[in-house]
Amino acid sequence: MDIEQANQESVNRMMKSHPVVVGVAKAKDVIPGWADKPNLFTHAGPPIEWDRMCGPVRGAVAGAMIFEGMAKSYEEAVALCEKGEVEFAPCHHYYSAGPMAGVISPSMSVYIVEDKELGGRRFSGLNEGRGKVLRMGAYSQEVIEKLHWMEDVMAPVLDAAIKDAGGIDMRGLIAEALGMGDECHNRCKSASLLFIKAMAPGIVKACKDDKEAARILAFMGDNQLGVLNPIMAACKGMADAAHNVEGSTIVTALARNGTDFGIRVSGLGDRWFTAPAPMVDGLYFAGFTVEDANPDIGDSTIMETVGIGGFAMAAAPAIVTFVGGTAKLATDTTLEMYEITTAEHPIFTIPALDFQGTPTGIDIRKVVEKGITPRVNTGMAHKDPGVGQVGAGLVRPPMSLFEDALMAFAEKYGF
Amino acid sequence: MDIEQANQESVNRMMKSHPVVVGVAKAKDVIPGWADKPNLFTHAGPPIEWDRMCGPVRGAVAGAMIFEGMAKSYEEAVALCEKGEVEFAPCHHYYSAGPMAGVISPSMSVYIVEDKELGGRRFSGLNEGRGKVLRMGAYSQEVIEKLHWMEDVMAPVLDAAIKDAGGIDMRGLIAEALGMGDECHNRCKSASLLFIKAMAPGIVKACKDDKEAARILAFMGDNQLGVLNPIMAACKGMADAAHNVEGSTIVTALARNGTDFGIRVSGLGDRWFTAPAPMVDGLYFAGFTVEDANPDIGDSTIMETVGIGGFAMAAAPAIVTFVGGTAKLATDTTLEMYEITTAEHPIFTIPALDFQGTPTGIDIRKVVEKGITPRVNTGMAHKDPGVGQVGAGLVRPPMSLFEDALMAFAEKYGF
Repeated sequence: MDIEQANQESVNRMMKSHPVVVGVAKAKDVIPGWADKPNLFTHAGPPIEWDRMCGPVRGAVAGAMIFEGMAKSYEEAVALCEKGEVEFAPCHHYYSAGPMAGVISPSMSVYIVEDKELGGRRFSGLNEGRGKVLRMGAYSQEVIEKLHWMEDVMAPVLDAAIKDAGGIDMRGLIAEALGMGDECHNRCKSASLLFIKAMAPGIVKACKDDKEAARILAFMGDNQLGVLNPIMAACKGMADAAHNVEGSTIVTALARNGTDFGIRVSGLGDRWFTAPAPMVDGLYFAGFTVEDANPDIGDSTIMETVGIGGFAMAAAPAIVTFVGGTAKLATDTTLEMYEITTAEHPIFTIPALDFQGTPTGIDIRKVVEKGITPRVNTGMAHKDPGVGQVGAGLVRPPMSLFEDALMAFAEKYGF
Repeated sequence: MDIEQANQESVNRMMKSHPVVVGVAKAKDVIPGWADKPNLFTHAGPPIEWDRMCGPVRGAVAGAMIFEGMAKSYEEAVALCEKGEVEFAPCHHYYSAGPMAGVISPSMSVYIVEDKELGGRRFSGLNEGRGKVLRMGAYSQEVIEKLHWMEDVMAPVLDAAIKDAGGIDMRGLIAEALGMGDECHNRCKSASLLFIKAMAPGIVKACKDDKEAARILAFMGDNQLGVLNPIMAACKGMADAAHNVEGSTIVTALARNGTDFGIRVSGLGDRWFTAPAPMVDGLYFAGFTVEDANPDIGDSTIMETVGIGGFAMAAAPAIVTFVGGTAKLATDTTLEMYEITTAEHPIFTIPALDFQGTPTGIDIRKVVEKGITPRVNTGMAHKDPGVGQVGAGLVRPPMSLFEDALMAFAEKYGF
């Protein structure tokens, strides 16, 4: 078995994947395996049971249960969870990826992202914007009302608009946004404008109520993370395309549930390697400190898994106002990631580096050998349920994840 | 008289100017002095009469006359111009700035840009997109039909949408776009998305025909130069704010009519210093060569006059695919411009240079002393009327302009 060759195949598949958003529909209606599980709620990161869930995931689960009409209050939702009335699973096990808490419930609408090159569909919920939002663990009435408006009014219009546009090419959109100052994880400002721009004509045609059409255009236009979720579903597809290549040491998932950080490796099947989620180093919103923050959380590290986000930070120097650091740090972050990756992406390129491809395909051997862990840009949630975002910053997964995976690889393949 | 102090005052006024788009109306109805001149057509650059006008300006004048119903063909328009039936003046003399040929005719709609800090209004036409367009000298039926649609259908909707948005802050928009990979002259991709994003909700509310609303959203959304014109009007306001400061050696206009390159200087009143317009060094669209190109043309150098465009090229490394060069050239272009300018802009900043302000306020003394002329990003028009754009690239105004101005300054102020 030739590891180099296996890795090359794995990364080639990752880079060949061509995700396109084709529509919006309810999770239970389109995500394979969900229809039989009316009480299934997914969460970010590796598997975790209720008793070990962090505050923001608990808050988001409770909020989703209130949204579904299964509970009337946080306390009622908690009681049901403690009685085992809710089935939990990682988004990753249901072809999905969710930012922060990552909770998707059966009646929530999700973007459907199809791989035009390799086939298959991946999913992600609708983005609620910043501030008091479910994905950060908030569940107040205002949060739930917004979710209902998104579900009842916006979701069908977006579905029609995406179809009117003939689908939206996410690989092309990410590539374009990297030339417009985004790294497409924590900074999706240009990408979100490209996304709403593509949908705008269809939104007007599909939405017969002008005021609601205007509200959707304003809501999506002002949400600088509006496209975060379909980008995540697109990256999930790319990562999965690279998964399950026999003998490959390429990382195919980096994901955190707010308690544990987990990784998966292409040649090691569906096993998760986990370690305690670290704290994020970054900038706090006014009124919050490190005491308020939850450990690292969310599936959005799927971006770094496929070579964007922190790995493309050189494309997004303006992000330092949000996550901290200097322009040099942004460039150095990308440059360092070439040390632990296998390829330069042919389509995701960085203008400031004369269009060098982003560092793509993390090799666990290189991570351990060089002592360099992946760099991640991320948001920070409050540790308590019901509060919301407290800041954003930079984080690295624990080295033990890669050491454990390399041990398992040696064991499986007999090195 | 203290030149340093005069320059500081001049540049401070330039940087204090706070332009906001407040509406859209016909040139003859809003531009001061136009109402009395039914046959007035403005053009880019310093003053020029018909017999010395270059091909693209002639083409654009003829197209505008066909649009106005004054002529039925290019030949008929030319005959009227030769008979002196049309009055020509620079946009600059009518509170305006126009890209490339820069032709504005009486019935054309213009953006109205108000200075919220210093008062006064400046104007610029609606942008037609790329390719076969009037500003590049094209005048075919397709060009004229698009102008009529823009005028009859789009202009009133944009006016209502801008008012619905409560005006659009152009200074804020430029600052934001510099963080999104634009230099806001030849690359206005992010800026154009920010502009249409601000208008989108109002467009839906104002336009009762959903299909036309969708068409406007698609037309503006797909036009990566959609915001070029209001940015120019905004910059014209900033430059004019710096003008007429006694004893100031700050450049307050750089402008080309395709035959001559002209500059004005703050302390030297409304006199134009001119020299033959140079050729642009850049990349040609497929099928065109240097033989096809007209010399440098357009008022869009008003951007460089106030510290963006070529001066902010470090913010827009992706532009090199359009104008040629490398990412290093983009950075070096900005760095060099600090040599000939007076201030760093407090609001227009460059993330990749750790948010250093753009080099602002060209001092003719520094240009002559250091032998460094301003760097400009620009488009290239075909030299013949009726063709259109052939490429884009980089250019510098002739040194003699600054030498002549400095001589005149010495003469006037007795150095």
